[in-house]
Amino acid sequence: MTEQLDHLNPDQPYPLEGITVVDFSRVLAGPTCGRMLADAGARVIKVERPDTGDDTRLMGPFAQDGSSEYYRFANLGKESICLDLKDPDDRAFVKQVIARADVVVENFRPGVMARLGLDPAELVEEFPHLVVCSVSGFGQYGPLHQEAAYDTVIQAISGMMDGTGEPDRGPTRVGTSIADILGGIFGYCGVVTALCARERTGRGSTVDISMLDATFSVMEQSLMEALGTGERPTRIGNRHPSMAPFDTFDCQDQPIAICCGNDHLFGILAKTLDLPGLSDDPRFSSNVDRTDNQAELKDELQAKLRTEPAETWHQRLQDAGIPSSLVLNIDDTRKLGQIKARGMVKQVGGFDVPGSPMKWGTWNSMGTMLPSPALGEHSDRLRAEFGAATAR
Amino acid sequence: MTEQLDHLNPDQPYPLEGITVVDFSRVLAGPTCGRMLADAGARVIKVERPDTGDDTRLMGPFAQDGSSEYYRFANLGKESICLDLKDPDDRAFVKQVIARADVVVENFRPGVMARLGLDPAELVEEFPHLVVCSVSGFGQYGPLHQEAAYDTVIQAISGMMDGTGEPDRGPTRVGTSIADILGGIFGYCGVVTALCARERTGRGSTVDISMLDATFSVMEQSLMEALGTGERPTRIGNRHPSMAPFDTFDCQDQPIAICCGNDHLFGILAKTLDLPGLSDDPRFSSNVDRTDNQAELKDELQAKLRTEPAETWHQRLQDAGIPSSLVLNIDDTRKLGQIKARGMVKQVGGFDVPGSPMKWGTWNSMGTMLPSPALGEHSDRLRAEFGAATAR
Repeated sequence: MTEQLDHLNPDQPYPLEGITVVDFSRVLAGPTCGRMLADAGARVIKVERPDTGDDTRLMGPFAQDGSSEYYRFANLGKESICLDLKDPDDRAFVKQVIARADVVVENFRPGVMARLGLDPAELVEEFPHLVVCSVSGFGQYGPLHQEAAYDTVIQAISGMMDGTGEPDRGPTRVGTSIADILGGIFGYCGVVTALCARERTGRGSTVDISMLDATFSVMEQSLMEALGTGERPTRIGNRHPSMAPFDTFDCQDQPIAICCGNDHLFGILAKTLDLPGLSDDPRFSSNVDRTDNQAELKDELQAKLRTEPAETWHQRLQDAGIPSSLVLNIDDTRKLGQIKARGMVKQVGGFDVPGSPMKWGTWNSMGTMLPSPALGEHSDRLRAEFGAATAR
Repeated sequence: MTEQLDHLNPDQPYPLEGITVVDFSRVLAGPTCGRMLADAGARVIKVERPDTGDDTRLMGPFAQDGSSEYYRFANLGKESICLDLKDPDDRAFVKQVIARADVVVENFRPGVMARLGLDPAELVEEFPHLVVCSVSGFGQYGPLHQEAAYDTVIQAISGMMDGTGEPDRGPTRVGTSIADILGGIFGYCGVVTALCARERTGRGSTVDISMLDATFSVMEQSLMEALGTGERPTRIGNRHPSMAPFDTFDCQDQPIAICCGNDHLFGILAKTLDLPGLSDDPRFSSNVDRTDNQAELKDELQAKLRTEPAETWHQRLQDAGIPSSLVLNIDDTRKLGQIKARGMVKQVGGFDVPGSPMKWGTWNSMGTMLPSPALGEHSDRLRAEFGAATAR
């Protein structure tokens, strides 16, 4: 398809070409925002502490050559300059870089940028075209804004952890640092929205992203219940709160996910599983009935599904048009033809890294093809380029 | 703080004022994209099927007046027009609306828009300023692109479900429709990036978002392991893969999340828990040691933590500066002073709804203050406004 060729065509320009970002952020949330900007074609200059750089350079998992995959994933396509932000000369220098940049990203604790002479609101006042994005655990104001936050703390306080897992077991952490990453993604949303508004009005802006706000805002059913019905939500395992069958089910060897969102699909499911009695059973005659009696329905379905392997059932369900999937380990997911066709794993600098999920017909959508930088790799070049104060 | 006043100041303009969106999407993923555009101040015209409208109008949870919270959360601030897209007159009409719009959002199965005479690539060809965003389970091309997908199917196939939960239990669904919602958020990212590029170049674009791409791309540690080390990742419960203690721990009454990312914090933790022996224990002397012996460490910590309630420990840990949190039910999260201070719950049309996590200093950041529409509420007005063909 021509669409596909357009997306993966490396000769297309990137959508954010010409945008320069100064990225002061460390570890995961802020760097994810900067990485997305690099994936969209912005030039991203990462400012790192001399000698050690970003903490994640020493964090695993490590590739065979000893380099950190953690650092690599969050910093692809960036340039690295070592600056001591407590040194007046380096601070004066970084102001010259900022004066010629479009975006600043940082994820220090609130107040640290101001103590470094780089208060976000003051930067926007001094450089009215600038977008300055701060990502933090709780945001730049409010009673908790000075609290330290790691991903697990935000998953705990946001309701995300309490809402995940089986009702008879404890709260469950999502198996990725979703609060950090949502902070980074919403940072990207906030920055690009502000850039779009700047193109239309000439006005820059601060952007203040809270990982708690971000994580809270993606809570769906449980937040609807808490805000809308006044009921206190509870964990319900893998099933859907208002559709059935819509869950994982045990087969002979491993579980399978099956989703029937309506009566039509349920009828086909009963036929495909050779369980004609299900369609006539009054306990299961409508989606509301099936949800009310989902435990009994699950027992009936599993009694049958346990007689054969998940792969056998998956083939039959797929042929019948019923949404289903094996529960894949990510080591199998990465090998899917679909992941390959979409460029969602790519080789950059000799390493396999994830692609970008933003696919544009008009613009290069491979994400950045530049590796993550060695510590201070671009210090000399950047000092030469930005060394003389230059009016924008 | 002035920042706060700026964010919540309803007299500020919104950043996307003047942008018009035609939203053909249904249920959750596409509507989330449209809702975010409305939150940023775009005008969003939702096209609904006559008589029934969006499926979610009939989906719970329901408010006391019988209206769907599900529909409301995903469609705040939109205008609703009923159109029969199989009717030639209505199709001609909707083309007139599109001709004057900036953005189209849809989440039909790939190919449906083309069959309706609204092929995304052709629309951009006809209206070169237009951004047309398609959100689907697997994207518009690739071997799986025609497969039906619900959130649970994508959580299963993406590795998200397999990576979440305890090692001795089965794969666990994240307690929100994270794959749908990430599809919507990355849809917003793709649209606003394309709008920004359009302002700079004059060129519109298609945007092709796959829920699988989006969910796969946020997998962190497990994807690093699969791509970087060749090891097959496994579920590890609530703990962090490479930091300890960084987990949930049982107290007398309920669990608490405690995160010590370095030796300094661990020393303070040992002091705060009155467990001086921990600091001298060679099993726990560095973060690598603590991670290697995290099970023994957890036992030692829990033996102490179980002697008092979580709230007591939380106060002490907070006073000592150690990142920690109770594991809150979202019904308690929504009542936090921090959530209130940030406008993350607001009253719109008499209902409590979530706010927007994008906070700009220059722009109104309350998110839309308009309610979700009744079915076809704006049909007459929109037919009058867009009825005559008008050149853009």
